[in-house]
Formats: sequence, C-alpha cells, structure tokens
Amino acid sequence: MKNKELVTELAARMGWTAQEVAETLSVLSSVVSSRLVDNDTIYLQGFGQFEVKKKAERISVNPSNGKRYLVPPKLVPVFKPGTTVKNKLKELGDHE
Amino acid sequence: MKNKELVTELAARMGWTAQEVAETLSVLSSVVSSRLVDNDTIYLQGFGQFEVKKKAERISVNPSNGKRYLVPPKLVPVFKPGTTVKNKLKELGDHE
Repeated sequence: MKNKELVTELAARMGWTAQEVAETLSVLSSVVSSRLVDNDTIYLQGFGQFEVKKKAERISVNPSNGKRYLVPPKLVPVFKPGTTVKNKLKELGDHE
Repeated sequence: MKNKELVTELAARMGWTAQEVAETLSVLSSVVSSRLVDNDTIYLQGFGQFEVKKKAERISVNPSNGKRYLVPPKLVPVFKPGTTVKNKLKELGDHE
C-alpha cells in the first residue's frame, strides 16, 4: 500500500480531503520522528509503540576478500506491536 | 510519550481538538493494522514502512528444567525507518 493509497483510504473513511490527511500524516511523522531522536518511547493506543534501541558494534567479514571489519554501533528505531495487532497476526499464523 | 501526550501535541500543532486527533489516530491504526493482517506493506512517506515477516520456528530451552521445546513459527510486524529518521539517528549515534 503506497502512501497515496493510504491517504486516499483514510480520506474516504473520515470524509476529509486528501490534502488534510496528508498534512496530518506529515505532522504525525515529524512528531514521532523527533521524539525518537530524543530517545523517547512513543505509545500509539491500539497500535503499538516505537522506541530507539542501540545495536552493539560487531565484527563482520567482507565476503569478496575475506577481510574482517568493524561495524560501528548504531541507533535503530524499533516497533513493538500492541496486543490487538499481535493477536490478529497470531490467529492468522495459527490458521496457516 | 504516552498516547495522551501525543494527542495533545498533535492537537496543538494542527489547531484541532484532542478528540479529532484521537479519532484520526484510531482510524490510521485500524487501516494500517488491517493491511498488515492482509500481508500488505504500508508506506508512510517521510517516516518508514511496515510489513509482516514470518519468523521461523525454533527450538528453545526452559532454563528451570532444561527441557527443550519447539517455539512455533510466528508472524511479526516489522518497521523499517525511512531515510529521514535513519539519518537523524545516525547523526545522533555519531556524536555520542
């Protein structure tokens, strides 16, 4: 589902213009992003939470020349689904 | 940042009531969740994408009695940050 399709579906559901929805999503993204950068966990009711985790540095190997090199530590945003999403996916997995 | 604080901040930024924001977030969550359950990838411009990955089954050990047991395969939603978020976090990590 591309961004545009998401905007169209949300606009239809809420009776808004695509522009209003796009603006809302953009403000939401910017608030969540800046909170993540501040190392804050963001809770979205019924959906899940976003937080930043630090991945430790590690040694990797370049497969073409066999040389070892150090991958530096990095900060990555992680999404933890809420129970609603988790349960829906669990049901789906159980029926496969 | 709790759900309520997020709602308050979004409402202030957009000049909306908290109720309008809460309703929007709830519709957004429900659209994204149901798309995930349909195994669709959802792109949110400037923020990132959500998709469902299948985690393989694996064998684990109960540490209290040493018994091995099978953890069944499961579907988990995964968030991949967009370049904006990734770059912001990279800068932050580089300055630490």
